[in-house]
Amino acid sequence: MTSYTAPTKDMAFILHELLEIEHKDIPGYCDMSPDFTKAILEEAGKLNSEILHPLNAVGDSVGCKLENGIVYTPPGFKEAFDQIRAGGWPGIDCDPQYGGQGIPAVVAMQTSEMFASSNQALAMYHGLTHGAQSAIMAHGSDEQKNKYLPNMISCEWTGTMNLTEPQCGTDLGLMRTKAEPSGDGAYKISGQKIFISAGEHDLSENIIHLVLAKIPNGPAGIKGVSLFIVPKFLINEDGSLGARNSLSVGSIEEKMGIHGNSTCVMNYDEATGFLLGEEHKGMRAMFTMMNEARLGVGLQGLAQAEVAYQNAVLYAKERLQGRDITGAKEPSKAADPLIVHPDIKRNLLNQKSFLEGARAFTSWCAMLLDQYERQDDKKADGLVSLLTPVVKGFLSDIGYEMTIQAQQIYGGHGYIEEHGMSQFTRDARIAMIYEGTNAIQAMDLVGRKLGKDNGQHAMAFFEMVISFVKDNKDNTPLNEHFLERLKIGSKNLQAASMYFMQNGLKNPYDALTGSYDFMHMMGHVCLGFMWSKMAKISMEKIENQCDNLTFYENKIKTGKFYMERWMPLTEVHLNRIQSGSKTIMSMSPSDF
Amino acid sequence: MTSYTAPTKDMAFILHELLEIEHKDIPGYCDMSPDFTKAILEEAGKLNSEILHPLNAVGDSVGCKLENGIVYTPPGFKEAFDQIRAGGWPGIDCDPQYGGQGIPAVVAMQTSEMFASSNQALAMYHGLTHGAQSAIMAHGSDEQKNKYLPNMISCEWTGTMNLTEPQCGTDLGLMRTKAEPSGDGAYKISGQKIFISAGEHDLSENIIHLVLAKIPNGPAGIKGVSLFIVPKFLINEDGSLGARNSLSVGSIEEKMGIHGNSTCVMNYDEATGFLLGEEHKGMRAMFTMMNEARLGVGLQGLAQAEVAYQNAVLYAKERLQGRDITGAKEPSKAADPLIVHPDIKRNLLNQKSFLEGARAFTSWCAMLLDQYERQDDKKADGLVSLLTPVVKGFLSDIGYEMTIQAQQIYGGHGYIEEHGMSQFTRDARIAMIYEGTNAIQAMDLVGRKLGKDNGQHAMAFFEMVISFVKDNKDNTPLNEHFLERLKIGSKNLQAASMYFMQNGLKNPYDALTGSYDFMHMMGHVCLGFMWSKMAKISMEKIENQCDNLTFYENKIKTGKFYMERWMPLTEVHLNRIQSGSKTIMSMSPSDF
Repeated sequence: MTSYTAPTKDMAFILHELLEIEHKDIPGYCDMSPDFTKAILEEAGKLNSEILHPLNAVGDSVGCKLENGIVYTPPGFKEAFDQIRAGGWPGIDCDPQYGGQGIPAVVAMQTSEMFASSNQALAMYHGLTHGAQSAIMAHGSDEQKNKYLPNMISCEWTGTMNLTEPQCGTDLGLMRTKAEPSGDGAYKISGQKIFISAGEHDLSENIIHLVLAKIPNGPAGIKGVSLFIVPKFLINEDGSLGARNSLSVGSIEEKMGIHGNSTCVMNYDEATGFLLGEEHKGMRAMFTMMNEARLGVGLQGLAQAEVAYQNAVLYAKERLQGRDITGAKEPSKAADPLIVHPDIKRNLLNQKSFLEGARAFTSWCAMLLDQYERQDDKKADGLVSLLTPVVKGFLSDIGYEMTIQAQQIYGGHGYIEEHGMSQFTRDARIAMIYEGTNAIQAMDLVGRKLGKDNGQHAMAFFEMVISFVKDNKDNTPLNEHFLERLKIGSKNLQAASMYFMQNGLKNPYDALTGSYDFMHMMGHVCLGFMWSKMAKISMEKIENQCDNLTFYENKIKTGKFYMERWMPLTEVHLNRIQSGSKTIMSMSPSDF
Repeated sequence: MTSYTAPTKDMAFILHELLEIEHKDIPGYCDMSPDFTKAILEEAGKLNSEILHPLNAVGDSVGCKLENGIVYTPPGFKEAFDQIRAGGWPGIDCDPQYGGQGIPAVVAMQTSEMFASSNQALAMYHGLTHGAQSAIMAHGSDEQKNKYLPNMISCEWTGTMNLTEPQCGTDLGLMRTKAEPSGDGAYKISGQKIFISAGEHDLSENIIHLVLAKIPNGPAGIKGVSLFIVPKFLINEDGSLGARNSLSVGSIEEKMGIHGNSTCVMNYDEATGFLLGEEHKGMRAMFTMMNEARLGVGLQGLAQAEVAYQNAVLYAKERLQGRDITGAKEPSKAADPLIVHPDIKRNLLNQKSFLEGARAFTSWCAMLLDQYERQDDKKADGLVSLLTPVVKGFLSDIGYEMTIQAQQIYGGHGYIEEHGMSQFTRDARIAMIYEGTNAIQAMDLVGRKLGKDNGQHAMAFFEMVISFVKDNKDNTPLNEHFLERLKIGSKNLQAASMYFMQNGLKNPYDALTGSYDFMHMMGHVCLGFMWSKMAKISMEKIENQCDNLTFYENKIKTGKFYMERWMPLTEVHLNRIQSGSKTIMSMSPSDF
C-alpha cells in the first residue's frame, strides 16, 4: 500500500550545492561529478523503490521464522538480497583492495538512507555486515583481512555484532561470555548473547560474528573485554567453508517492529573464535563498529521519517475531507483534499523541515568522515566524534516523532495495519534504543565528547557557527529569517555548556540531568546551521535566476519554518538545563 | 509480565484534599465521605489489578477473531466482563431510576481511569455502552429510555457509536448511509460504517447501535444527519429479545493496538432503526456521546501512561546496570539499579509529574460535569466544554509520549513484545486519533470554544488562574516555585488568545496554524494550575505536621519538576503561534 521514491534531487542539491563535493580537495572527491553521482543515486533509487520497498510490508506481516535451528527470512528477501549484492551496494564505500568500490562516504550516506527508508529490516543485514567489515579493516591482521573482507564486502558472508547479554546491556562490564585460549592461538568462546540482529538467517552462506568476551584472569569489568571473530562456518586454508562452528540460535525475539530482521538469542558453546585486535582492548575495536552504527541508526530515524512523510503527503493530496475555511479550493469535488487545511500543512512542513535539515546534517557528517579517513584530518575526526551522539540520539528521537505525525495525517486509517503507516512508526521506534539508548548518547555527548581534548572540538563547532553568522550578517533576508534565530540557538547552547562547566565539576548531577536536553538543543543548532547554509545558497540561486526556481523557493520556505517553529525549542532546553538537578535528585527511589 | 496497582492514594488526595468533594454543595457530594470513596476505589482497584490487567497481554496477543459472522473476544474477556457487570461498575454514575448507582462523575472518573489503565481494550466495551446510554438518556423518549436503559446500564446489552464511513471521517457531511421512513414510525437503515469499536462481540446478548444516517430529502451535508437506535436484536413489547435485525459485521480490522477490542466494518441492509431525538438533529444528539467520549479518550492517555509508568518504575528499581557517578549506591550488588541514574530519574519524574497533574485535571473536569448535571450550573458547563478538547488532545498526545518514555526505560527489552511495554504504546496511540483527531480538537478549541458565548468561558478560566496567583502571592515558597511559572504560562496563553483575536479575524489561517500549539499551551497552564493548587495544600499539610509527610513532600517535588521542566514549553508554543501562518500558507500542495 505504501510507496517510496528516493529523494535524489534533494540529495544532489546537498552533495553538489551545499557541500560542493566535486570541488573539495578530498582524495576521491574530484571524481564525484554531478553526472556520476546522479547515475549512482538513480540506480540505487530504482532498486529501492521498485524491488526493496514492495517487500517492506511482507517483512512486517510475515516476519522471520525459526525452524529446527534455521531462520527463514520473509518471502522475497533472499532474491532481493541477491540483487543488492549483485549491484555491489554493500561494498560501495569499501576498500577496492578487498573488492569494494571506494566511493566516498558522503555519497554512500545517500544510498544508505535509501536502503533504510525502503526496507529497514532488510537493510540491516548488509548494514551490520558493513560495520563488522569496518572493524576487521581497522583492527584485523592482514591474514584476517584477506580471509574475511572480500566475502563480507560482497555480502557473500554477512556480519553481526554481539555485545548484549541477559544481565548486561549498557553496562558491558557485567559481561559473562568467556574466551578460553585453546592453545593454538585461537579461543573457545562460551556464553549467551541476546538481541543479535541478523544473528542467523538464510541470506548468506556464512555469518561472521564479532563477539565480545572475557579472557579469564584479565582485568575486571569493561577493561577485560576482548573482541573475537567467530564465524558460523570456519574457513579452510583455501578460503572454502569448513566445519560448522559450535554456535547456534536459541530463539528469535518477537518485537514491536523490524520483523523482517531476525533478532536472535545466540548460544556459543566453546565456539572457535579468533582475537581481533589486542587482548582486553575489545571495546576499542568494538567502537569502530559502534560509531559507524550510531551514525547509521541516526540515519534510520531520518530514513523512516522520510518514507512516512512521502506517504503522508500522498494521502493528504488524495483524501477529500472538509473545506478550506476561506472557501472551497476544489469546488468540483465532494470536499477539498486534506492538504488544503492549515494544520495539515503545518504538520507536513514540520516533517519536511526536519527531514531536509537532517539529510544535510548526516551528509555533512559523512564528509567529515571522509576528511578523516582520506586526509587524516584529526579535526574532522574530533568534530564527527562530537556530532555522532547528536546524529544518533536527536535524529532517532525526532525521526520517530515524525513517523507518528505522518501516521496522524491518515486519521483512523493510520491505525490500521494494512495502510503501512503503523509499520514505519514501529520500525523507527528501535532506533531510539539500539546501539546505546538515547540517554546513553546524551551522557556520551555531555560527559565525554563536550570536554574531549580540552573542549577543542566543541569550541571548533561553536566557532564555525558563529563565523557563519558573522560573515553573513550583511545579508539582510538571511539575517532576518535565519541567522538571528541561529544566533540565539547557538548562544543558548553555549550558555548550557558554560552551565555544565561551572556546575558540573561541583555537581556532576547538574550535567547528567541536563544532558538529554543538551543533545536535543545541539541537534536544533546543527539543523538550524544547515538550514541557514541551504537558505543562503538558495537565495543566491534565485538571485541569479537559475532554473528550478521552485525548488529553491521551497528550500527557503521550508527552512523558514524550521527557524520559526523548531528553533525556539533551544530556549526551553536551556531553561530546563539551568533548573539544575536539585529537584530531580531530591527524589529517592522509594519516592517513585 | 506487567502489573497494575490502582493509585488509590493519589485519587483520594484529589477527591478529598484538592477538590474536597464531601464539603462541596453539589447534590450527592455530601455522601462521598473518604471512607465511602475508599471502599469504592479499593474494590475497583482490586478487580482491575487482579482480574482485568492480567488479561491485557492476552487481549493483545490473541485479539478478536471473526468466524462465520461471530466475533470471539480474547480468552477470559467474557468471564471478566461478567465480573465487571456483577460489580455494577458500568452503571456506577448512571441514573438510579434505570438501575444505575448515581455516584457522582468525579468518583466515577477515578474508576474509569483504572479500567482504562488495566485493560483499555476491554474497558471500551462498557465505556462505549456508557456513551450510548447517555445519548439515549439525554435525547430518548420515555419509552426508549424504559426499553433500553436498564439493560444498557447493567451492560446486559452493550452499545456502539456509528459515525465513520469509508469516504467520510472528520467530514460527516459526506455521509451516505440512508434512513428511509418505513411508514410505521421506524426507519430502514442502509449503508456501511467503519471503525466501529465493539461493533460485534460475544460479551453481551444484544448490541444497541447508535447510527448516524441521512433521511432522504433532508438538508444537505451535516445538517441533514439524524441519529438512530439500531439494535442487533429487536426488542419485543415484553422486553424480551425479538427478531435479528438486518445488520452484520463485514470484517474486523487488524490494528496497531487495542487488539482485544473488535473494530468492525458494519453493514446495515435495510436494518430497522428508531429515531433518537429529532430528525436532522443527529449531530446534537451524537455530541452528547462525543463529548463524554472525548473526556474518556483523554483519560485513556493518562491511564496508559500511568500503567506504563508503574512498570517502568518497577524495572528501574530492579534492573542492575552501571554505577552512580559519585560512587556505588549498592556496592554489594554487581551494579546499581537503573533508578540511581540522574537521567532515569528525570525521565520517571517527567512521567510522574504529567500523570498526577493530569489526574487532578480530569477529576476537576468531572466535578464541573457534576456541577452542571446536578446543579444546572451553566458556567461549569461552559468551562468543561472549553476544557474538553484540551483533555482529549493534550492528555492523549502527552500520555502517548509518556508511554514511549516508559518503554525507553527498558532499553532493548522494551522493544520485545513479551515485556508488555510495547502494548502500552500501541494501545495508547489510538487515543490521539479517535473521537476526532487531535488536530480537530485543536480547531474545536480555537475556532469554536475560545470565543463561545463572547469568550466568557475562556475569560472565566483566565480569571480563575489569575485570582489564584493573586490570592497567594504572599505565600513565598509557593510563589517562588509555582506561581511565578504559572503566571508566565497564563500570560503566554492570554497573549496567544489576543493574537488570535487580533489576527484571526483578518486571517483565519493565523488561528488555524496556531491551534495545535494553543491546545498544548493551554494543557500546560491547566496542569500548572492543578500543580500550584496541590502544592499549596501539600505545604499546608507539612506545616501542620500531618501524617504521611513523605506523600506531601513528594507532591511538592513532583510539582516543582512540572513547573521547572514542562511549563517553559508555553513560551515555545507562543513563539510558534506568533510566527503566524505566512510561511505555512505560502506552501501550495505541489510544494510538498
